Formats: sequence, structure tokens, C-alpha cells
Amino acid sequence: MQHSAGGRALAIDYDDVLSAQRRLEGVAHRTPVLRSATADARAQATLHFKAEHLQRIGAFKFRGGYNALDRFDAAQQRAGVVAFSSGNHAQAIALSARLKAMRAVIVMPEDAPEAKIAATRGYGAEVVLYDRYTEDREALGRGLAEREGLTLVPPFNHPHVMAGQGTVANELFDEAGELDLLLVPLGGGGLLSGCATVARARYPNCRVIGVEPEAGNDGQQSLARDAIVAIDTPRTIADGAQTAALGDLTFGVIRQCVDAIVTVSDAELVDAMTFMASRMKQFVEPTGCLAVAAAFANAEPWQGLRIGIVISGGNVDPLRFASLIAAP
Amino acid sequence: MQHSAGGRALAIDYDDVLSAQRRLEGVAHRTPVLRSATADARAQATLHFKAEHLQRIGAFKFRGGYNALDRFDAAQQRAGVVAFSSGNHAQAIALSARLKAMRAVIVMPEDAPEAKIAATRGYGAEVVLYDRYTEDREALGRGLAEREGLTLVPPFNHPHVMAGQGTVANELFDEAGELDLLLVPLGGGGLLSGCATVARARYPNCRVIGVEPEAGNDGQQSLARDAIVAIDTPRTIADGAQTAALGDLTFGVIRQCVDAIVTVSDAELVDAMTFMASRMKQFVEPTGCLAVAAAFANAEPWQGLRIGIVISGGNVDPLRFASLIAAP
Repeated sequence: MQHSAGGRALAIDYDDVLSAQRRLEGVAHRTPVLRSATADARAQATLHFKAEHLQRIGAFKFRGGYNALDRFDAAQQRAGVVAFSSGNHAQAIALSARLKAMRAVIVMPEDAPEAKIAATRGYGAEVVLYDRYTEDREALGRGLAEREGLTLVPPFNHPHVMAGQGTVANELFDEAGELDLLLVPLGGGGLLSGCATVARARYPNCRVIGVEPEAGNDGQQSLARDAIVAIDTPRTIADGAQTAALGDLTFGVIRQCVDAIVTVSDAELVDAMTFMASRMKQFVEPTGCLAVAAAFANAEPWQGLRIGIVISGGNVDPLRFASLIAAP
Repeated sequence: MQHSAGGRALAIDYDDVLSAQRRLEGVAHRTPVLRSATADARAQATLHFKAEHLQRIGAFKFRGGYNALDRFDAAQQRAGVVAFSSGNHAQAIALSARLKAMRAVIVMPEDAPEAKIAATRGYGAEVVLYDRYTEDREALGRGLAEREGLTLVPPFNHPHVMAGQGTVANELFDEAGELDLLLVPLGGGGLLSGCATVARARYPNCRVIGVEPEAGNDGQQSLARDAIVAIDTPRTIADGAQTAALGDLTFGVIRQCVDAIVTVSDAELVDAMTFMASRMKQFVEPTGCLAVAAAFANAEPWQGLRIGIVISGGNVDPLRFASLIAAP
């Protein structure tokens, strides 16, 4: 379903999220909402952490990927799926395809970490490697899709992906009730657009704020200019948010439903990762800490609020975690 | 209550654990039991992880400490408590005393980590520092206790402490049902004796195995000789299990109720910590991984079993964690 707001049709509405919620029932984990008195004291607010690092494949991406595949028609299911990704989306599609007994082809750069290639193959997907300096992955993927009849599922700019990611906020509200503020990591905008759609429908007074890495604030710029701003691939430890631009579908929802976008520095991300480990005993990837870092950095204006925080994922190699937190 | 077995009275029985369970209701966290398909595949068994790193103060020690203080009589409560510890027991007693509005004096070595001293003071306890090379902490503590009427609560060799720690296994069985095997970290034996007491009462066929660091296998030696064997303070990264000897009360229960004691190496502990972080997204201290490491190391003899694993704590400084897992 689509509804229009401000003259433009939005890609998804709350019914799409509810449909995704039903499709994910018994398939995705209903991840816990964590609380910490120490975190509350630090932020001077009441924090509810939605723990998507405990989701299948270690990140929220499973929700959108599975929802998209679950909506394939019979012919699409028979032919299979193709996706490009070197990160969590690759594993989300690979696992979802295995669960749906579907063929999956994942296009990955040949210099992707060996562990990620192995993990994707481990889920039974075919991995097609390309040289990121000489080959165009989009052309490669589209060629594969056309030749073999595969359906392409993009990582964020797709209604079924966005609706699937919205179930994160839906479950958070189910557990925590009304919130004053919802803080959501922002890369391409799949998670933020889905979560904002839910907040607008269920708790219109809940402010929704996206959190980007300081070095890659294309979302913040886009909201300010009311047009998608593209930037060079940002240099940040938040590798899940190294997107150059929002999609037209995600931006359409974000400009209507999101109140603001704030940024945090890499140093604030490292501090948040360290806090999550030492105080909450949770192992969270840098991108996964975006909303946590924002809650700590902005304690004063948000003092006393009931804040929902989406922890988006936990897929960081322990050795990389070690080197990040040990850096001066 | 006491009951006798093999001609010797044991320090605790299952009723003592049930009494502790009632006292801890609404005070201690009922920590979750975690599952992981990846862990099951690796151990070729069904693993149920009791997550005591998510307990208050970050370790199971809160249970025994609080239970002991909750059983003080009125005069003891008015006077307060004294404990020696540089680790989790210090914080367990400090927090428990604050909750009971009771004075707490914690005797700590003056070279204890600043963060631990600060954390203990943060709970409102008075910290008395001593020089571990020239002063006898036991004499110091006993002097304090006598002069000021304080009650000493030892870290493991005490019936109320042991009964409190037994609630860990009680909750694990509540959630997981019958198990074939229960793996429990072993330092001074408070946790193991409490958990074994519960297993014997609820599921007599469940094997109970304690897990020690390879370098400090005094428990294994003690069980073999049927007498407490003391060793020099072992060199191991499992700092929570660097005890020189079991207590007479804990050994009394262990020799009657525990089937075996196995050991794991420091390298196996690091591997288990890395697994817990990368696959289960949980931040666990080296001692906390003893039972995890045993489950992975002993996959073959325990193949196909339903295994309960106690994760005892998560209090490791992130920088120390980083240096441990980054070591060659």
C-alpha cells in the first residue's frame, strides 16, 4: 500500500510493516530490549536498547531481506535472487534464500574479507567476485539478473526491505510503550524510514532522529536542502553507514517522517562501543553504536526523556574491535 | 538446614537454595538463558548458556553476597559487614550492603586497579587499603570485625554464599528443563557447590562437572586425593579462579555431588572469549568462559547431550580483553 503526504506518495505505510511483522513471526528473532541503570545515569534519560546485534546474521538486515524474498511470486522464487553487498545485506539475503529454499547469487568485491565470503557461501549462496576497480558491479548484477531471470533485492531502497526493517521499531514500541524520542542509525535509510513509519503511525508525538557518522553526513545535508545530496564514500569506522547517498524511496519517507538527523564522531563511537562492552557486556559493531553515542553526546537537551535506541548490529571482527578500542 | 551424606554433614541442601531464591526475588536479575545454533554445531551438543555476566555487578557473586547479608540478624545489620576482595565479591558485598542500607568495609590491596577501588566506593562502601607484601589482610579484617562489630562474609566458604550461588542452576533448570550435563566454572567452589546441590536434588541423573584453569587444577587434585590440595597462586588469565585451595565447606559438597573436574588452557579461554564476542555478541571475562571452553574442547565425549553452561561473569576491562585476544 501507498499513501501520499505533502503531495508525494510514500513507498511504505504502517500496514506494510505489519504485513512484514507477520511474515517474520517465528523466523526472525524477537530481539530483547535491554536496560541499564548505568546507561540511564550517563544519558540522564531512560534508555530502551533494541538489541538487533542479537538478530539472525547479527544485524537487523535479516528482517528486510527475508520480507522481500517472502513476497516473491512463484516464478521469482523458482528463479532465485541476486544481491550486491560485502556486508550484512549479503548474509541477510543468503540466509533468507536458504530458508526459502531459493537460489541466491551474491556479487561481492574480490578484496572483501575472506571470512565474509566464507560466511556467505556457508549459507549456501553462490558468490560472484568482481574487481571493484575495473568492473561495474551494477552492470554485472543486472546482467546476471537478466540472463538468469534472478530478482535483484537492493540493500535499502526497496519498499519490502524498508517495511521489514520497520518491524524493529514496532517490536520496540510493543515492549517499551510510548517513547519521547527514537534514535536510529542511518546509512542508506532502510532502517530509519521503516522505523519512522512505525513511529508516525503509533506515537505521533515521538520524535524520530537519525544518527550518521560525522564524516558521512549526506543524510543531514539532504534533509537541510530537501533533496538527496551525494558525497564521496565517507572515511569512518562505521562501515555499515558508508553510503554515498540515500535512495529516492528512503529519502521520501525520511523527509516526511523524520524530525532531525544528528552526527557523532568516530571517537564517540569507540567510546560507546567500550561502554556497551564494559557495562552492558554487549559486543556491538561501530555502526551499531551510532544511536548509543548520540544518546550519550546529547544528554542535556534530551534529559529526562524516554528514549528508544536501535542497536543495529554486532558484526565486527574481534581483532578489529580490539584495535579500535586500543587506539590512542 | 544440613543433611549428611557419606557420614559427613554437608554445609547446604536444596532447601537453602530455595530460601535464597525467595530472598533474591525482585533483587537479583533473573538472567536469560542464551542459545546459539553456531555454538551447538561447534560443540555437537545442545547448549544452554546461563548468562550471569548480565547479573547485577556483572557476575553471579551478587547472589551469594546478597543472600548472606539478607540473613544477618538485627544487630549484625546495624553494625555492618566486612569483606576482603579485589574482585567481584567486593562489589557484590558493596552493592548488597547499599541495598540493605548497611555499612560495608571492603579490604583491598593498595595496588588493586583504580577502577575497581572506585567502583567499590561508588557503591558507598568504605575501602581499607593494605600493602599485600607487608600486611596480613586476614588479620586486618579480623581486627576490624572485632573492634567495630562487623560481620565478615567470605567470598565462597560460607553456607549462605554457597546457597545464593546455587540459584544460578535453579533458574537454569527452570528454563531449560532436564539437562544431561552441567558445566560450572570452579575457583573457590561457591558456585560449583551451590549448583551441584541443585542438580542432585532436581535431576539426579544430570552429571555435574567443574571447570578449572589448567594452571590451577587444585580442585581436580583435591577430588582425586579426596582431600583439599593447596597450590601456589596459579598463573592464568582466569583471574576469578586464581584461588589456592577450595574451602572445607565447598569441598565437602563438591566431593559428594560433583562427578568430575576438567581443565582448560588459557588459549582455549581466549578462543572461547573470541567466539562469545564474534558469534554470540557477548562480552565475557576469561573466568566466565571456563565452561564454554570445556564444552568446545570436549565435543566428542559429550556429543548429542543437553548441556547447561554457566557463564559466570563479564568484568574484564575492554583494553585487557583487546590485549588478550590480540596476543599471538
